[in-house]
Amino acid sequence: MNDDDPISVVLFSGTDDRLQAAAVLTAGAAALGRPVHIFLQYWALDAFRADRIGATLPLAPEAGPEGRAAVDALAAAGQQSWSETLRMAKEIGEVDIQACSLSMDLLNIEQSELDPLVDGVEGVTAFFATASSGQLLFI
Amino acid sequence: MNDDDPISVVLFSGTDDRLQAAAVLTAGAAALGRPVHIFLQYWALDAFRADRIGATLPLAPEAGPEGRAAVDALAAAGQQSWSETLRMAKEIGEVDIQACSLSMDLLNIEQSELDPLVDGVEGVTAFFATASSGQLLFI
Amino acid sequence: MNDDDPISVVLFSGTDDRLQAAAVLTAGAAALGRPVHIFLQYWALDAFRADRIGATLPLAPEAGPEGRAAVDALAAAGQQSWSETLRMAKEIGEVDIQACSLSMDLLNIEQSELDPLVDGVEGVTAFFATASSGQLLFI
Repeated sequence: MNDDDPISVVLFSGTDDRLQAAAVLTAGAAALGRPVHIFLQYWALDAFRADRIGATLPLAPEAGPEGRAAVDALAAAGQQSWSETLRMAKEIGEVDIQACSLSMDLLNIEQSELDPLVDGVEGVTAFFATASSGQLLFI
Repeated sequence: MNDDDPISVVLFSGTDDRLQAAAVLTAGAAALGRPVHIFLQYWALDAFRADRIGATLPLAPEAGPEGRAAVDALAAAGQQSWSETLRMAKEIGEVDIQACSLSMDLLNIEQSELDPLVDGVEGVTAFFATASSGQLLFI
Repeated sequence: MNDDDPISVVLFSGTDDRLQAAAVLTAGAAALGRPVHIFLQYWALDAFRADRIGATLPLAPEAGPEGRAAVDALAAAGQQSWSETLRMAKEIGEVDIQACSLSMDLLNIEQSELDPLVDGVEGVTAFFATASSGQLLFI
């Protein structure tokens, strides 16, 4: 495997912490010159709706009230949101974000209702065609 | 990495949405001719019990009532269940499903109590021996 | 990919079941001679605090009371905890555990407050520099 091999991410989760983890990993990989290909499914796709992308999202259940307070304190101190981190990652590197067509049907969304961070819609076989080399993550 | 490298999936989650995501990714990979090797742990293994495989399962907590309604509406409209999708994937490609022996002990299950979708039981070192090449996912 | 290629794990979750799954996969890979590199984020990092590492942790929500009872019964029967499994994995193989510097800030932790299982603190680009080859998991 080479250092410029792509990283493909199936982004499924719609919690703020997992979206932030995905965004930070994407920014780190992009900073190292690795292409990142994100495939949005289910609740992650829901979080990319244009009218929801700034909304407060839940955390993983194990976060508890203490974890919620920590995340809110960092946001109040000026931490970038996950969508801002992804926007920055797209500026510094090669980051492609595609919505899963099956999940578009599930959530009854049109592409025009998605935030411009999303580059397009594709099926799972198209995703795997580009994800055949390099590393693969499910978040 | 070659296009026919296997995809190995540690399938841990017992929610309907993550099982469906895993099944759809498996079917997509199988359609492209890639072998898929699934290793069932914990709550995913529990979902493959012969007497539970058709049962209604919870969703990820962030789905909320709106997400539940969307999933139920698609099922009512005739969407394949995750187990039907996996059955189809096994017909079109090379899909092997193994139960983790440690999780069998945890859940106190015998192989005869599992759905025939499950091909066998193996330990984690046997899993890694076959998963040493190709991509690896944890769902 | 070679059999001695590393496995890199972004360990995010702070539930007992996912930490145990990660520990068992790490021990299995280490037993086969594969180096394992673990990067602790969010609630997984929180679980490695020296004063919490033996504490009872929640399970994935889909475990339910039946799952909780199964996990508690196995622990009462003498099953190793996830931290003991990781300690053993470090004895038999090459297992490196790093805390994510961003998550250290989030949780307001100093390295001196972490269990000695943790070998150091690094940023996400340093993690990806070592994770550029081999398989990558997000748990």
